[in-house]
Amino acid sequence: MFRKMMENVREKCPLIHNITNYVTVNDCANVLLACGASPIMADDAAEAAEIAALCGGLNINIGTLNQRTIPAMFLAGEQANALGHPVVLDPVGAGASALRTKTALELMERIRFTVIRGNISEIKALALGSGGARGVDADVSDAVTKENLSQAVAFAREFAQKTGAVIAITGAIDIVADGEKAYCIYNGHPMMSSITGTGCQLSALTAAYVTANPDTPLEAAAAAVCLMGAAGERAYGRLTEADGNATYRNYIIDAVCRMDGETLEKLAKAEIC
Amino acid sequence: MFRKMMENVREKCPLIHNITNYVTVNDCANVLLACGASPIMADDAAEAAEIAALCGGLNINIGTLNQRTIPAMFLAGEQANALGHPVVLDPVGAGASALRTKTALELMERIRFTVIRGNISEIKALALGSGGARGVDADVSDAVTKENLSQAVAFAREFAQKTGAVIAITGAIDIVADGEKAYCIYNGHPMMSSITGTGCQLSALTAAYVTANPDTPLEAAAAAVCLMGAAGERAYGRLTEADGNATYRNYIIDAVCRMDGETLEKLAKAEIC
Amino acid sequence: MFRKMMENVREKCPLIHNITNYVTVNDCANVLLACGASPIMADDAAEAAEIAALCGGLNINIGTLNQRTIPAMFLAGEQANALGHPVVLDPVGAGASALRTKTALELMERIRFTVIRGNISEIKALALGSGGARGVDADVSDAVTKENLSQAVAFAREFAQKTGAVIAITGAIDIVADGEKAYCIYNGHPMMSSITGTGCQLSALTAAYVTANPDTPLEAAAAAVCLMGAAGERAYGRLTEADGNATYRNYIIDAVCRMDGETLEKLAKAEIC
Repeated sequence: MFRKMMENVREKCPLIHNITNYVTVNDCANVLLACGASPIMADDAAEAAEIAALCGGLNINIGTLNQRTIPAMFLAGEQANALGHPVVLDPVGAGASALRTKTALELMERIRFTVIRGNISEIKALALGSGGARGVDADVSDAVTKENLSQAVAFAREFAQKTGAVIAITGAIDIVADGEKAYCIYNGHPMMSSITGTGCQLSALTAAYVTANPDTPLEAAAAAVCLMGAAGERAYGRLTEADGNATYRNYIIDAVCRMDGETLEKLAKAEIC
Repeated sequence: MFRKMMENVREKCPLIHNITNYVTVNDCANVLLACGASPIMADDAAEAAEIAALCGGLNINIGTLNQRTIPAMFLAGEQANALGHPVVLDPVGAGASALRTKTALELMERIRFTVIRGNISEIKALALGSGGARGVDADVSDAVTKENLSQAVAFAREFAQKTGAVIAITGAIDIVADGEKAYCIYNGHPMMSSITGTGCQLSALTAAYVTANPDTPLEAAAAAVCLMGAAGERAYGRLTEADGNATYRNYIIDAVCRMDGETLEKLAKAEIC
Repeated sequence: MFRKMMENVREKCPLIHNITNYVTVNDCANVLLACGASPIMADDAAEAAEIAALCGGLNINIGTLNQRTIPAMFLAGEQANALGHPVVLDPVGAGASALRTKTALELMERIRFTVIRGNISEIKALALGSGGARGVDADVSDAVTKENLSQAVAFAREFAQKTGAVIAITGAIDIVADGEKAYCIYNGHPMMSSITGTGCQLSALTAAYVTANPDTPLEAAAAAVCLMGAAGERAYGRLTEADGNATYRNYIIDAVCRMDGETLEKLAKAEIC
């Protein structure tokens, strides 16, 4: 199944509009190219709707959120909704500041998201309408473990029902759920958290995957999560003793670039849960 | 000839002012350092003219164009013109939104550009005053091929005459033309289009080359195009099976860094056309 | 001593708030992760004070300075001061434009900095209240050499006394001084100047080090300077003939990532001067 998802991206080469932070924007663009999609970054209100219309899907990421680009998020999101294009929300740092929490909640009110992807602390902040996130990383006390997994899955499913979006909560164990069904995904490597932007990259990939697979957003999002994790595993396998997080960052994007559908199908560690 | 162009850059170490997008800005800075130039990025209206005066050349790139930085483009461009400094325009995404097309056309009205470098769709959008670009990539239907090459060269030459700028249209085959003469350049590798920012990097390099070679802008721009393409070829030669676009991106900048004039002269595949 | 400084960072994993330029922001985030700290980038006035309060330390960098983010610098700095959190200033390009010089001076008036780190031209511009910097690089005529070292150390010490901050002047020879004591540091490699952002990365590292070692800011800053230089040396040792500044950039962050306290202690070339 994941194989087909991947092949659809490589075949359709979806054009993805990104309104995203300036920290990891280059990685997002390169990982989109790596997976076979095509990126465009455009965050000014004067062109946001026009670019959204030109593209097949939209990725909104609130890292380095600022007053200048918030209006563009709404305009692009509304345009994408009007045209029936998939929209992904990455609520980076929701819960860490009122600006981020408030903006994410307003975006969710006015825009219909296909997928919302974040770490557990960010998703909790959205579900509770507040939060106590430790910056842009998940709080340790929130972490999804084998012990609290069924509880976390139930939470994801409920939030999916409430929002109508596929909810992707990523961490050591990833959960991808819609109101009916959930995947637990065990791909990835702990060293991925030593790089900035693996979450942002995954959201960009997710936008490409749901755009190229419009009828199966849950499976498409799960495939993107497996891809990012599998790329993290393969990239880790290439590291020498002298390599650190900078080389690892490059190798992960390389691994996305070199991944084919058959390999992804083989490496994916996803189960319905 | 290209050898001399390159050596002048390495010898004079021109300081280049960049007002550019935040997607590929780091690559632009590093490729300028790689070629022997020195970058400064400054996009606020309050310092644009002052920084332009401090520098030897200016590179204006309209990727992630926004209202905050447009005034700085005009102020810096006018100052550079007043001082007789070379100015390069990279009309990223011209034709993809009214904001970008309109801003690029206004820049061309008020500022005298030494070189305008873009893909064929972007340059057509400027020539026609409108466009139907597919995001930031050239439209397939526009592509310059062996079959339509003489037509594309004539178009480039005419647009050069009309604008007074050297026109560099880059793609599988590159055309660099002024009103009198044109070079067709066959360097490069198809995989370069799987990286974000090779075009932006080339525009930055072009600014360095025309600044260090003020009397021969056509040849200087052609040398920069050959350099970028030759770097893409050499970098491709280093890739292993596990390497993808992220490693390729690094190796291209590495190749610019390691290139010397003699090697460039040998690798350049440019002919007058 | 440097060993302990490093181990404190790895143990405490300080959360560092960065208001920094968009050229090297990704490198700053990755180098903070590499050293064991955790980065958050947030530059909007609406959340600056809140994020500063959430973090343990603050890093203000005026590269690509612009009107939108200046208010956030003041708000975050004042909040950090109120809470007794360390604050680092990197006056990128001070002396190159009135906007940068003036803003840096105003920041110094209203905010108490723990460390001010820049190249000799930038620090001179702050000390004199003006300057003639060549862009973002130090002016050759300013360079700290063996011949003028004692003079430069006296200047650093005086400026430290005047400002109450640790002054870190980095270049071929680095000086780290408070009002009483100064370290001269001989780590590093000339090729580091062929990469954009080694200075920005060092300022980010310095913020992490002074945050995790609040009682010894002079030694903490000196340790960060040694770390960056030692990483530059180790990374250089890995380069092959085909590698240039892009690979070097990655290897330096890798080297920070792989460095341990014992190795740092061994590699550090610091002496009281």
